[in-house]
Amino acid sequence: MEVDQSALLKKLESFRFVRQLNEDSFSKSVALLGKITDETTQKEEQGILLVEKLPFQASEIPDFVSSRLKDPKLFFNNDVYHWYKSNLDNCEAYPDVKMTLIYPATDVHVNKYSEQEAIMVRETPDMYEKVVVPYIKRFPVSRIQWVYNILDKVQESEKIIFEDPDPQHGFILLPDSKWDQTTMKALYLLVICHTRDIHSVRDLRSKHLELLRRIRAEIPRAVVARYPHVTEDQLKLYIHYQPSYYHFHVHVTHVGLSTSPGATSGKAILLDTVIDNIECIDPEYYAKCTISYVLGTNHGLYASIREYEDAKHDN
Amino acid sequence: MEVDQSALLKKLESFRFVRQLNEDSFSKSVALLGKITDETTQKEEQGILLVEKLPFQASEIPDFVSSRLKDPKLFFNNDVYHWYKSNLDNCEAYPDVKMTLIYPATDVHVNKYSEQEAIMVRETPDMYEKVVVPYIKRFPVSRIQWVYNILDKVQESEKIIFEDPDPQHGFILLPDSKWDQTTMKALYLLVICHTRDIHSVRDLRSKHLELLRRIRAEIPRAVVARYPHVTEDQLKLYIHYQPSYYHFHVHVTHVGLSTSPGATSGKAILLDTVIDNIECIDPEYYAKCTISYVLGTNHGLYASIREYEDAKHDN
Repeated sequence: MEVDQSALLKKLESFRFVRQLNEDSFSKSVALLGKITDETTQKEEQGILLVEKLPFQASEIPDFVSSRLKDPKLFFNNDVYHWYKSNLDNCEAYPDVKMTLIYPATDVHVNKYSEQEAIMVRETPDMYEKVVVPYIKRFPVSRIQWVYNILDKVQESEKIIFEDPDPQHGFILLPDSKWDQTTMKALYLLVICHTRDIHSVRDLRSKHLELLRRIRAEIPRAVVARYPHVTEDQLKLYIHYQPSYYHFHVHVTHVGLSTSPGATSGKAILLDTVIDNIECIDPEYYAKCTISYVLGTNHGLYASIREYEDAKHDN
Repeated sequence: MEVDQSALLKKLESFRFVRQLNEDSFSKSVALLGKITDETTQKEEQGILLVEKLPFQASEIPDFVSSRLKDPKLFFNNDVYHWYKSNLDNCEAYPDVKMTLIYPATDVHVNKYSEQEAIMVRETPDMYEKVVVPYIKRFPVSRIQWVYNILDKVQESEKIIFEDPDPQHGFILLPDSKWDQTTMKALYLLVICHTRDIHSVRDLRSKHLELLRRIRAEIPRAVVARYPHVTEDQLKLYIHYQPSYYHFHVHVTHVGLSTSPGATSGKAILLDTVIDNIECIDPEYYAKCTISYVLGTNHGLYASIREYEDAKHDN
């Protein structure tokens, strides 16, 4: 590369900060606006500096704890979860990394945090009946108990932001545990329905329009009443398919949270689209449609879906 | 917080690395599996350590270039774009940040990198006719010229991976400029149709099923033939609405690219869903449906959509 290193380095060094244009705490990056004076013309010009933290390198990983950490500090712990912050070098003012230690860790933990391949699945109504329905029936009730505890006010009742108490068309709104409850652009809430009859979006029919419309009307109002720094049109309401538990619930996030893996197409279906499909297109839409989604190869459904597809090819 | 700091710090310090479970270069995080010996029982247990780089802090930003950078190095430059790497402290072996300097930067650059508010839009068929169709008609042809250059083999013909030359139902497949063409998990390709009659998903009807089915059948085969490290079921095919240009095209990415902002629901509609909607639900689906999407307030449609909605409220 034949470039004048020192002249181009001087450009960077003469960058004078004007203001921050943007930041992204997920990718750890910032966009800065500055001024740079051109060396030859002496004219001042705008410059934009995009700064992004680099990923960890393979070579620093094996001895990371013993060699890289400088003065780690514990800042919270709860049961098997321990949270620390630390520097990688000597600048105390700006900690470099956040760490979570899970100890002792079960194999379920190991599985959850292990790299996982994923495939696209095209779930026809027939595949739903033959593979997914039996899976839902086998799904251990114990894994939904936490939902029933919330609905029965046994747990987390102090967190409830809004409730429509109607047993058929009502629901509870509360913050999702993923949200720190302060960063408005990371706002993440959960709507859990009172009815226990809807397992997933596949069960939705015209008789559920009353429930869906109430969520659509009441939730944005309730969120803005509680968090006046967001507006109703900044909220995104969506449903997961496959969901992680088969009791109907709706995710409510800030539109700015677009890089969350759970907001991706092939996982998240907008509530507006669901209502429109049943109301304006076909009341039986979710009985007739093929739903395509991304499925991790560690998912409990993966083996049965592979089996179903192999059997189809054999015929 | 009443925790025994030193005992819990000792847990972290006694973490012995076994293997890396996962890494995410987008969020700059790794998941590590290790062993920790319990102090009292002397039993060895598994521990998982999640390490994530921290975002920049507001206080380090204003003097970032003058105070935080240690020995920055230029590694590439092209026109107004300059790329550097640098440490924030003294550990030369592991650079901390990557920087891009755009200089001189125009106001278009400033706008592009500035924080942008976004809202959710519910586009009814009526809003499409009254607001979006006129916007598409006003869209400068010059902004689509690069697409015609590809289709006419005036530009980028050496990049073409596959072509179905049928003028009505055919298309060209080539790598998207966002992709580095090496990282398979970041695979990003583009399918551009030969027909110039389809502006967006809104125009799709039964007569286009032949085109859509050909893409569905031929593209995965062509991608795997060229990139044997991916499999057909690892590919995600989707359409943007609103698209950034109104000549029908389809995005092809690796399923692992889930945190890309363009893969989010409210922006990306799966090709499978589009085919199913027209084929199995209603041939006029895209004439009848309401499409909901996230729209940046800098988007050329924003003002007219606001006007349309205000007028509706006044009636």
